[in-house]
Amino acid sequence: MPINKGIVLASRPAPLSKATPENFRLVESASPEPGPGQVLVRNTYLSLDPYMRGRMEETKSYVASQPLLEVMGGGTVGEVVASNNPSFKPGDKIVGMGGWQLYSLDDGQALRKIEPGKIPIQAWLGPLGMPGVTAWAGVKRIIAPKAVETLVVSAATGAVGSVVGQLAKAAGARAVGIAGGPEKCAYAVKELGFDACVDHRAENFDALLAGALPRGIDGLFENVGGRCFDLCSRHFNDFGRVALCGLIASYEGKEPSSLRDLSLILVKRLKIQGFIVSDDMSLWPQAMMELGGLIAGGKLHWRESVAEGIESAPAAFLGMFEGKNFGKQLVKLV
Amino acid sequence: MPINKGIVLASRPAPLSKATPENFRLVESASPEPGPGQVLVRNTYLSLDPYMRGRMEETKSYVASQPLLEVMGGGTVGEVVASNNPSFKPGDKIVGMGGWQLYSLDDGQALRKIEPGKIPIQAWLGPLGMPGVTAWAGVKRIIAPKAVETLVVSAATGAVGSVVGQLAKAAGARAVGIAGGPEKCAYAVKELGFDACVDHRAENFDALLAGALPRGIDGLFENVGGRCFDLCSRHFNDFGRVALCGLIASYEGKEPSSLRDLSLILVKRLKIQGFIVSDDMSLWPQAMMELGGLIAGGKLHWRESVAEGIESAPAAFLGMFEGKNFGKQLVKLV
Repeated sequence: MPINKGIVLASRPAPLSKATPENFRLVESASPEPGPGQVLVRNTYLSLDPYMRGRMEETKSYVASQPLLEVMGGGTVGEVVASNNPSFKPGDKIVGMGGWQLYSLDDGQALRKIEPGKIPIQAWLGPLGMPGVTAWAGVKRIIAPKAVETLVVSAATGAVGSVVGQLAKAAGARAVGIAGGPEKCAYAVKELGFDACVDHRAENFDALLAGALPRGIDGLFENVGGRCFDLCSRHFNDFGRVALCGLIASYEGKEPSSLRDLSLILVKRLKIQGFIVSDDMSLWPQAMMELGGLIAGGKLHWRESVAEGIESAPAAFLGMFEGKNFGKQLVKLV
Repeated sequence: MPINKGIVLASRPAPLSKATPENFRLVESASPEPGPGQVLVRNTYLSLDPYMRGRMEETKSYVASQPLLEVMGGGTVGEVVASNNPSFKPGDKIVGMGGWQLYSLDDGQALRKIEPGKIPIQAWLGPLGMPGVTAWAGVKRIIAPKAVETLVVSAATGAVGSVVGQLAKAAGARAVGIAGGPEKCAYAVKELGFDACVDHRAENFDALLAGALPRGIDGLFENVGGRCFDLCSRHFNDFGRVALCGLIASYEGKEPSSLRDLSLILVKRLKIQGFIVSDDMSLWPQAMMELGGLIAGGKLHWRESVAEGIESAPAAFLGMFEGKNFGKQLVKLV
């Protein structure tokens, strides 16, 4: 019987403090046997996502708290190796919530079969998965950019942000990214087709941002918060929409995210809406169809940071909060 | 020729300071003669509204700044006394933007004919006018309360708030008001049908508010801001909606209105939307039909504070920012 390896949450970070490698622990066990109705999956790729930081705390986030000493939850793609469930057979490629481990059991409820064909299987954790549908939901259902409008997205080269910008361009809007460092900014413009991308680490970030916004901001897809949100909020046009998707700058207490003057919302008639893609599963079919069409047509590009082996997951995860990843952060498990 | 009397803006209040009687001045002149295509209206009632405070400042509000030494703008109902416009004849009852004066000229564009019948003419400045449609737009188009939900409205006995609560009740929701003083709170519950109304001047306002919200807040129709908004924001349920209509607590610098922690919007998936009823005139026919139906059926109640004579307009207006009005603030001009 093969050995299963997984990462458990060993301890919780102190409130408003950085998570550390010591919060995680590698555990080994025999790979489990599927019971009646169950499916055993060999996970191929694990998705690392900022929302997992919220789950590490006991305080109520929008997702349930991660139980201590249990394997960290997370999205995975993999292959069925044994099945007592008539809907799945060995060899099936699936996307599921296998967590930070090599093998996982599922009763089939949380598994979806996929047919990768020419598209690499890990795309179901990126542009064809939760990040892609998140981008789609915020752009299409909250911001709904018109052709003449300007949409700004922070963490622009990330798994979500990169899709946001390309959906904005597909809608005919001006897409302006915010990213950390000249390399990411150049990639956003040259490879992803953003009209501009501003480096938030630049000394004159404020002036560069203003320069990239000759017609102000109509839509802001906010992944970061903190100073980034604060500076953007000075550029809103009337009837601006904010899709509030993440506040990674505030997750570990680095920068507070606040709106100092609510009258901005009133005077400019803004809409600010927080959302989580899993709240409305009815969006997925339409989103997947449109995203799949863009990918098939060669009109949606993305980039991956791939860590090798389950042992590398904690460091790769912690690196995301330092902006070390470039594109979708994955862990290759096979 | 009769004498026209009007109130002009004599000077602007200092930023973040109270407006004073000295900011206004009474002027007299001959009543104007209608030119080609023009209509002369004898104004019967003038509407006083909080948005006018924003217009007194030079800083950009959501409405154009009131020019100095010109008659203050404002909604009016009145009667046509002379007309060179084929669409209007003497005796027609109209609602328009006649401003703070006894007589006004209009080219007809901003006038709407009304047929008061059994409904008092000044209702077109209240539940059948801008305040009523404002309430309708925020309740129906932003909050959209479901029957099991709780809707909170501040300034609950005002021209807008009173309609908000009654529309919430008509939709089957729990309506909780916030108002200043026991008399207004009793009126909200006994006459307007609110389920509860909390006195923000009470020492234990915080505890009283919590007690009135056994199932939290699903919709907040915000007219006040400041501490009132701050305390309400602790009670939001997931997917709460805020219709941001006014921030009267902040208009004169008394209390800042802010959202200290944006993560609240994210974690609870809130929607906060600023709106102004004049932004979408297409809402008016539907709103007027529904509001008119409720009034005709005896299901919409309201109250007026009526100041007598144009000379009383400045004091009545300034009193609104102290909560001295009880219901819709009008000035009777005839």
